[in-house]
Amino acid sequence: MTTTDLAKRVYDHTWKLDPIVRSLLDTDFYKLLMLQMIWGLYRDQPVTFSLVNRTHAVRVADEIDEAELRDQLDHARSLTVSKKEMIWLAGNSFYGRAHIFDPAFLGWLADYRLPDYDLAVRDGQFELTFSGSWVDVTLWEIPALAIINELRSRAALKGLGRFQLDVVYARAKAKLWSKVERLRGLPDLRISDFGTRRRHSFLWQRWCVEALKEGLDDAFTGTSNVLLAMDNDLEALGTNAHELPMVLGALAKDEAALRRAPYGVLADWRKYYGGNLLIVLPDTFGTAPFLRDAPDWVADWTGFRPDSAPPIPGGEAIIAWWRAKGRDPRDKLLVFSDALDVATIEETYRHFEGRVRMSFGWGTNLTNDFAGCAPTPNGGLKAISLVCKITDVGGQPAVKLSDNPEKALGRPDEVERYLRVFGAAGRVAQPVLV
Amino acid sequence: MTTTDLAKRVYDHTWKLDPIVRSLLDTDFYKLLMLQMIWGLYRDQPVTFSLVNRTHAVRVADEIDEAELRDQLDHARSLTVSKKEMIWLAGNSFYGRAHIFDPAFLGWLADYRLPDYDLAVRDGQFELTFSGSWVDVTLWEIPALAIINELRSRAALKGLGRFQLDVVYARAKAKLWSKVERLRGLPDLRISDFGTRRRHSFLWQRWCVEALKEGLDDAFTGTSNVLLAMDNDLEALGTNAHELPMVLGALAKDEAALRRAPYGVLADWRKYYGGNLLIVLPDTFGTAPFLRDAPDWVADWTGFRPDSAPPIPGGEAIIAWWRAKGRDPRDKLLVFSDALDVATIEETYRHFEGRVRMSFGWGTNLTNDFAGCAPTPNGGLKAISLVCKITDVGGQPAVKLSDNPEKALGRPDEVERYLRVFGAAGRVAQPVLV
Repeated sequence: MTTTDLAKRVYDHTWKLDPIVRSLLDTDFYKLLMLQMIWGLYRDQPVTFSLVNRTHAVRVADEIDEAELRDQLDHARSLTVSKKEMIWLAGNSFYGRAHIFDPAFLGWLADYRLPDYDLAVRDGQFELTFSGSWVDVTLWEIPALAIINELRSRAALKGLGRFQLDVVYARAKAKLWSKVERLRGLPDLRISDFGTRRRHSFLWQRWCVEALKEGLDDAFTGTSNVLLAMDNDLEALGTNAHELPMVLGALAKDEAALRRAPYGVLADWRKYYGGNLLIVLPDTFGTAPFLRDAPDWVADWTGFRPDSAPPIPGGEAIIAWWRAKGRDPRDKLLVFSDALDVATIEETYRHFEGRVRMSFGWGTNLTNDFAGCAPTPNGGLKAISLVCKITDVGGQPAVKLSDNPEKALGRPDEVERYLRVFGAAGRVAQPVLV
Repeated sequence: MTTTDLAKRVYDHTWKLDPIVRSLLDTDFYKLLMLQMIWGLYRDQPVTFSLVNRTHAVRVADEIDEAELRDQLDHARSLTVSKKEMIWLAGNSFYGRAHIFDPAFLGWLADYRLPDYDLAVRDGQFELTFSGSWVDVTLWEIPALAIINELRSRAALKGLGRFQLDVVYARAKAKLWSKVERLRGLPDLRISDFGTRRRHSFLWQRWCVEALKEGLDDAFTGTSNVLLAMDNDLEALGTNAHELPMVLGALAKDEAALRRAPYGVLADWRKYYGGNLLIVLPDTFGTAPFLRDAPDWVADWTGFRPDSAPPIPGGEAIIAWWRAKGRDPRDKLLVFSDALDVATIEETYRHFEGRVRMSFGWGTNLTNDFAGCAPTPNGGLKAISLVCKITDVGGQPAVKLSDNPEKALGRPDEVERYLRVFGAAGRVAQPVLV
């Protein structure tokens, strides 16, 4: 008997859309943690998020079709958090803590939908912005990036035959598994998936997460992707991001207030979360100025996530600061998450082994490394440095300085003003690959 | 809607057997060509085929279950050539020739089933023999080998999880595809699949054949597997094998008749087939003696298949012989088929390029190279040198000398006698890997 499933076959013929984002939980966990705080403290603050392609040479709007992008964004707007998902958010423990989400916040979230967007094409790039109250637009960041990145993958693979596609994924699987085997050589490794936004595709990220779960056992500590955490009984991981100090910085009335803004964010955060969620992201306006001006209580936090400095000098600077504050770095945690791949992870691990607790949030090179996998060189499969960042806060431009000037964002005159306030100490330009 | 196919799922639960051989055409084409000649000339000749594991260190009967082996052999015995297959054999052209099979032969084949077998276990090895008239038992060779080899693969993969299996096949695919890419560097390559008997599994051989078809285009000239040739509209390839001179040698009444036997086989063959099917397999009793004593008309044949000498000296000896016979080697064909892998193919191709026509029959390293693919070293996935050869011809032991003494077969006293008749010129011992 031929066993074609007739209903499936006909359904496949009639597909209008293969949705990229099928759940509002298909996002990074820190967006939900930040969302609860934004909902509590800044819910009506008007902001704009904008798409920024730092890989200028790639003309994204030439690679993918605007109509397809609109279809995917519109589909994402049709989603609400499902009943099962709401129950899981309310009932699951995160970072060992039950009831991390306030029932009132969850009540608001149950009715939430992604708001409208503005999309135009200029000079081969998409101008995609999300304007509205912070609490409404912030969740767009991850699905918008995941959609564009997956549409790029789909466009890059168009025209390949079924057999060639089989080889592409076979090679990608073999490649990832060889990375897993190398990572097994690091006995006390703690590593997690941070690859949602830059992933090749949702299904590929799911395979990668399953690969780490199978191949690394306890060394794999979880995923930033809330949906994958739920579906695979993994820890949902992540704390906070640059958008918090960027908004608070933009809201500062004067230079003194601006200088205090990064610590104000931490004070807000501490009202909501504790323990392992007390991770400082120090580089929004430069790590060296942050450490120089930080109040002593910042040294009580569990750890730091150096996100734009090279990991070894970046980590050393933080360790030196902990020591200067009389803290033992062996009690502290460094979360590395910038442009990691196996070689950097190995090097960083070996450098700091025994001197500080470490964890690694592995992103693009986990979920979107297809170099050498296509039958012929295929630029469309190469991940680009696409971000979706706060650009405007109630009419005031937002700024990120970063430890790497190549990652700085904001209107040039505002960047200059921030540099005057914080100084440029410790900034080192490095190419931004992903 | 969850789209589980309930009927399939329940059917899967109730599986008694996943058959390895599902068609009598899942065999090497040369078996059918030889079968027609045997049917015409020697149909009642009693012979015995016996399984021989030349890789003594591997205890096959410890790896696989005798009951499973019996189930698979019994299933193969239940097969007949289907109506569609019969029509294809009658209607297809082989080597450019229509109606290669006599209707009377096809009429006999339509009712054919594999005969009974004898199976015992001794010292960790299967003693598997097929005794009867030559025309009845000869077709057992390929399915018997394919069944045992695939049962070994299945046993080796037992206990691996679904994810691990996914990685094993991803790696094997990536590995084969990198071989395909290397072979693309040989502009006039002609290569075919000869990997049925030693394949990892039927489905894997099918994938490999599809890979060569997709990746090598016209450089891929076909497959020895009749079923895969039919299903993929490929040329079915192969001519004749050692069993012909082995039987004719055993039937020789005296030493002079024995010395003439290899040429008698060719004379028989020429009555049935012509053109590109006139390929000499010279090594049954040693290539050097064969060439020394060959009548001039042998040099009129299309080509030679050196099968146990190292390809470069083996090919050179044949080229020198053609020259001595006043033939231009550039009009002649060498078919290389022994223990090939990409490096040997490249080396042989470059050595003979422009001096002789060449084709490559790629076997075990095409369809069963899983080295480095399993999560942990897995000896069960390593191909062994398993053959199924004529051992007895109506009470007279059969002998193969080969150019490689490691591949010789036969009762020692008979091997000695054959060596006295043919001489040992040109024999070079090499390890038999596959």
